[in-house]
Amino acid sequence: MLQAPPAEPGMREDEVDTPALLIDLDAFEHNLDTMAALLAPTGAKLRAHAKTHKSAVIAKLQMARGAIGQCVQKVAEAEQLAWGGIPDVLVTNQVVSPRKLARLAALAKICKVGLCVDDPAQIALAEQAAEAAGVRLPVLVEIDVGMGRAGIEHGPPAVALAERIAASKHLSFGGLQAYHGSAQHMRTPEQRAAAIAEAAARSRRTVEQLKQRGLDCPIVGGAGTGTFRHEAASGVYTEIQAGSYAFMDVDYAKNEDAPPFRHALFVLAQVMSRATPGVAVVDCGHKGVAVDSGMPGVWQRPGLRYAGASDEHGKILIEDGEAPVLGEKLRLVPGHCDPTVDRYDWYVGVRKGRVECLWPIAARGAMA
Amino acid sequence: MLQAPPAEPGMREDEVDTPALLIDLDAFEHNLDTMAALLAPTGAKLRAHAKTHKSAVIAKLQMARGAIGQCVQKVAEAEQLAWGGIPDVLVTNQVVSPRKLARLAALAKICKVGLCVDDPAQIALAEQAAEAAGVRLPVLVEIDVGMGRAGIEHGPPAVALAERIAASKHLSFGGLQAYHGSAQHMRTPEQRAAAIAEAAARSRRTVEQLKQRGLDCPIVGGAGTGTFRHEAASGVYTEIQAGSYAFMDVDYAKNEDAPPFRHALFVLAQVMSRATPGVAVVDCGHKGVAVDSGMPGVWQRPGLRYAGASDEHGKILIEDGEAPVLGEKLRLVPGHCDPTVDRYDWYVGVRKGRVECLWPIAARGAMA
Repeated sequence: MLQAPPAEPGMREDEVDTPALLIDLDAFEHNLDTMAALLAPTGAKLRAHAKTHKSAVIAKLQMARGAIGQCVQKVAEAEQLAWGGIPDVLVTNQVVSPRKLARLAALAKICKVGLCVDDPAQIALAEQAAEAAGVRLPVLVEIDVGMGRAGIEHGPPAVALAERIAASKHLSFGGLQAYHGSAQHMRTPEQRAAAIAEAAARSRRTVEQLKQRGLDCPIVGGAGTGTFRHEAASGVYTEIQAGSYAFMDVDYAKNEDAPPFRHALFVLAQVMSRATPGVAVVDCGHKGVAVDSGMPGVWQRPGLRYAGASDEHGKILIEDGEAPVLGEKLRLVPGHCDPTVDRYDWYVGVRKGRVECLWPIAARGAMA
Repeated sequence: MLQAPPAEPGMREDEVDTPALLIDLDAFEHNLDTMAALLAPTGAKLRAHAKTHKSAVIAKLQMARGAIGQCVQKVAEAEQLAWGGIPDVLVTNQVVSPRKLARLAALAKICKVGLCVDDPAQIALAEQAAEAAGVRLPVLVEIDVGMGRAGIEHGPPAVALAERIAASKHLSFGGLQAYHGSAQHMRTPEQRAAAIAEAAARSRRTVEQLKQRGLDCPIVGGAGTGTFRHEAASGVYTEIQAGSYAFMDVDYAKNEDAPPFRHALFVLAQVMSRATPGVAVVDCGHKGVAVDSGMPGVWQRPGLRYAGASDEHGKILIEDGEAPVLGEKLRLVPGHCDPTVDRYDWYVGVRKGRVECLWPIAARGAMA
């Protein structure tokens, strides 16, 4: 079931029903503008990652500020963006299910859609789907740039895959996918710089070898909010795939020399019990705010510590300052934005204490 | 958006699109029958917790085996059960929002609905909502039996709240809510027995003091899958609120002397990359399987270890035995059922390798 919206435009923020996912629109717009300004002098383009926001509305706002397209991880996410009018979507992932590939190929009739491979078998499956749909799909080769997750070895193995793509009648070689996810959360700037220098070196080497084989590499894509300044400055990466920058979360804010984005995403929660001394229990546990990267913060209440998340209860310890009263609403800052967004059906956009808009999170739960 | 179902009845399990939430129907029915058989001699009744399953379909199957009603944590969950035809629903939680209380009182016209309090202000709010709707709501007093989360102190403070409920024109005193959540996951039987002995002692004392004040206590409710045999044998608890028993998860199975339930809930995932030696990457990360209680297991593949969850990727280390091939589908056993279920729109019921049924998870995301 789609859940009912927790608010209506014009309401005061403290009237919003809880738990609710709030966007602070001033901070959010600041973040979009800041990213556009940071990338402008580098020549790298933004292909924002919709795995964070799951919304064609937000994708359009990013593209109005110069983003050239969107990334997704799932075919079901690509569908929501394509159906919502986004013209260029890249699945930054392998797709091995013929049913999913048929769905993806069907989208190619209404927008540009690409995908990634790291194995010849995936190329054969994509070729079959594209042929059956009568479309031509751009396919990127994902190379491992240091994560040891997906991605083929850079250099000759990657070039061999690219040649196989280029030789496929219904596919075109789209470039390299060179994402280093674990580098995003390295704490010091030196660690992050070193990791991305290595990723850029592997990418550069592969681009040169492709050129030697007569293959042009239209895209080198990767980067996230924790490292994108390095990729953008590398001269190799052409597309930056940051997502979280639009919202920011507690974990990214912990990085030394964190990028200049503001917290724009909050979960509004309500104190539902004050029966235990020193404790305020709120109506949002880990079903409502993701805790895989740590507990949420309590916004502008430094004396309150969200210390424990049950499924539906959050236990806030009152360590200092004013104690919240029963019924009071508190803003939580998610430890990790992406999975938090994925729990909700609606964004509640707020500005200066009032609800300004409601936006559906159309790709919520779009896992397949 | 409601996501499309990942399967159709009659399909083979390996044709189900991934990630998908599977119920092994034989194991599931075994679990429901086992719980009914275990409780029968004790006199305690099952009021199964729908926070686990979020489905009126499963609630009905539980009630067909003797459950006398359902628990929920959220008003939005109560709505889905009431609208799905469940006749008796208890919100095992405080509700302090007037909008939520109005929604709850509205349900009282189509089924029996109750809620819990641990503060006089909550009673006043519930009375207002019940009066406005022209209904009478049963209200339970939640007592703290050892968690230090919600719940008023047992004994005289709890009795005072009960008297205030009984004196409210549109409320009736429904009993005591005495749930000890943290005891569920204590690893040794001795720890769990001691915790529940203390919870039962606090409950018993309060029931006696209520009686001295002329107040009958129709319900003493609590217990979960980790401890229910203790509560059921206590002679004090009248209603058992277990939920996970229907599915079981990795964490409950780790308890010494774990209850005799079978793993019935799985996430079907597909290997989408084999590019890194010794690693199989599946298309299900922590957006698709909750990791708050640890990583999922890989069903009947002891040589495979799900070692790391990104948002949409699961990294499986191939430590021993047969390596999974690209495209292969694996069953994951969730570390924690409840939040895993809450990510999906559909259950896929399977038996003997075939899809038998699809059930909507109507209260998915029902947080408010």
